[in-house]
Amino acid sequence: MIEAAAGRLSGHVRHTPLLTSPFLDEIAGRRVLVKPECLQHTGSFKFRGAWSAVSALPEAVRARGVIAYSSGNHAQGVAWAARQHGVPAVIIMPKDAPRLKIANTRALGAEVVLYDRGTESREEIGEALASARGLSLIRPYDESLVIAGQGTCGLEIAAQADDAGVHEADVLVCCGGGGLTSGIALALEARAPGLRARPVEPEGFDDTARSLAGGQILRNTGPESGLCDAIVTPQPGALTFPVMARLCGPGLVVSDDQVLHAMALAFARLKLVLEPGGAVALAAALFQPEAMEGAAVIAVASGGNVDAALFTRALERFAP
Amino acid sequence: MIEAAAGRLSGHVRHTPLLTSPFLDEIAGRRVLVKPECLQHTGSFKFRGAWSAVSALPEAVRARGVIAYSSGNHAQGVAWAARQHGVPAVIIMPKDAPRLKIANTRALGAEVVLYDRGTESREEIGEALASARGLSLIRPYDESLVIAGQGTCGLEIAAQADDAGVHEADVLVCCGGGGLTSGIALALEARAPGLRARPVEPEGFDDTARSLAGGQILRNTGPESGLCDAIVTPQPGALTFPVMARLCGPGLVVSDDQVLHAMALAFARLKLVLEPGGAVALAAALFQPEAMEGAAVIAVASGGNVDAALFTRALERFAP
Repeated sequence: MIEAAAGRLSGHVRHTPLLTSPFLDEIAGRRVLVKPECLQHTGSFKFRGAWSAVSALPEAVRARGVIAYSSGNHAQGVAWAARQHGVPAVIIMPKDAPRLKIANTRALGAEVVLYDRGTESREEIGEALASARGLSLIRPYDESLVIAGQGTCGLEIAAQADDAGVHEADVLVCCGGGGLTSGIALALEARAPGLRARPVEPEGFDDTARSLAGGQILRNTGPESGLCDAIVTPQPGALTFPVMARLCGPGLVVSDDQVLHAMALAFARLKLVLEPGGAVALAAALFQPEAMEGAAVIAVASGGNVDAALFTRALERFAP
Repeated sequence: MIEAAAGRLSGHVRHTPLLTSPFLDEIAGRRVLVKPECLQHTGSFKFRGAWSAVSALPEAVRARGVIAYSSGNHAQGVAWAARQHGVPAVIIMPKDAPRLKIANTRALGAEVVLYDRGTESREEIGEALASARGLSLIRPYDESLVIAGQGTCGLEIAAQADDAGVHEADVLVCCGGGGLTSGIALALEARAPGLRARPVEPEGFDDTARSLAGGQILRNTGPESGLCDAIVTPQPGALTFPVMARLCGPGLVVSDDQVLHAMALAFARLKLVLEPGGAVALAAALFQPEAMEGAAVIAVASGGNVDAALFTRALERFAP
């Protein structure tokens, strides 16, 4: 399915490079290779899965349109994939989502339907709209076509690591529901068995790390959101967890300060804009070197949709 | 010579992608394709020319080492190209250069020799060192091997524009001494004759635009430096000017505010960190649409070595 997705994505998805910096190598004590999915269309890897799912719909079904729930990167990925296919997209977003994100999603061609988190159910609104208009729901991670799309990032990593002479390494992946992590893990299993995917999460939202350690799906019990909002999910997915349990190494957990520091170093050393949720893997590569082995580590920088104020805060505290 | 340089650079230089954003297209009123050389090794295109020159030296000559004068991007490019070849590099820098740039150049393996701009001549210091140690001088732009190295960026643009279906467009290039502009112009002449290079400069430092308009090399007469320090040179080069006069379209000149605005939009829409001198071409593409024709424009984003404080200033004023 990943290879089929790669075929559908060819010519539409951006083939992101693999970046390095001697300054980052020195901090980590090993070679650090960064896969900057912040450079992907719509600023995150989510466009891969969205394109994979939208492009796989039968033409007559697709023509009626798609629908998604998201206040963030998945919304933009689905909106843009639908627009590029010339079909309508409805995105259900909370009324209190940042105005810029609502504006961006609209600017990418989607119809945005706002709901009140306190009094309304997005599922009810979505189901009513979907059935009235015949829209197809694009789930953010627990959907095999989406996982296959994210897996195309793993195919690229396998080929690029081989070009760079890296055949044994941990591949650190920013992890929310596990779509990107499980997709990459499956691609590496087939194409680069010496590379091992490992999920990275922020402190307080380490449901995947705990689930992997415990051998069963465990939930987060703390606050509902935090600095790394793009990758905060209540628990790993029903489809993604078994894949991660079979293929991934232990999860890693980073602090908010490590995330902000990694953002500042990506600015200074890679010339990349990363959002907090997109910087957790790089943070683990740089600041937890004792948690991995080998002469190299690969970190997926999964997104860059960050407000200027938050980015500035990271620079003020940690830019070299 | 450009093709030969491309052969020497293969496997060592980064093949940067060509990025787009529907948000930028809307501002410019046409397709905007951005070549992000800020993602090149050492954060600017200068690594291409440095590698081209260092790799072309006869082995016995190269082994004695290289020398360059620069407080900026050329210094880092030469230092890293020399280090990768395993040969010494001496960089002559002014004592009052930013400490971070001095530290970075040293960290890239170079011996930094500081001089006092008021009382010492960098040429005298350099010539004494070069002759005592047998070092080869790597000039920043008026050197055919360096121009050929920068031209490899043009070969990539020609191929990538073809892939993107763009066969007629202006290629806007951030222009200091003209090494990058003339190298790209030569590559396009051979590989993509429908694409035309045009130099872009900041207000007050428009020596190349005036020289092209006047048909002869003219100097800047104002202050010695400004916001776009990386591309401030007194006049176009003796080698680069005739090439630009033969091949380039009219020069473009942008304001400092347009540059800062382009930096903020590259942050928000491309997830790229640009320095002011690396953002002038994008600024022209976005804010001077009337100065060009056609359905697409290509802008080279030539570097990203900017301090956090200045970057923050751009975001505070212009981030969407």
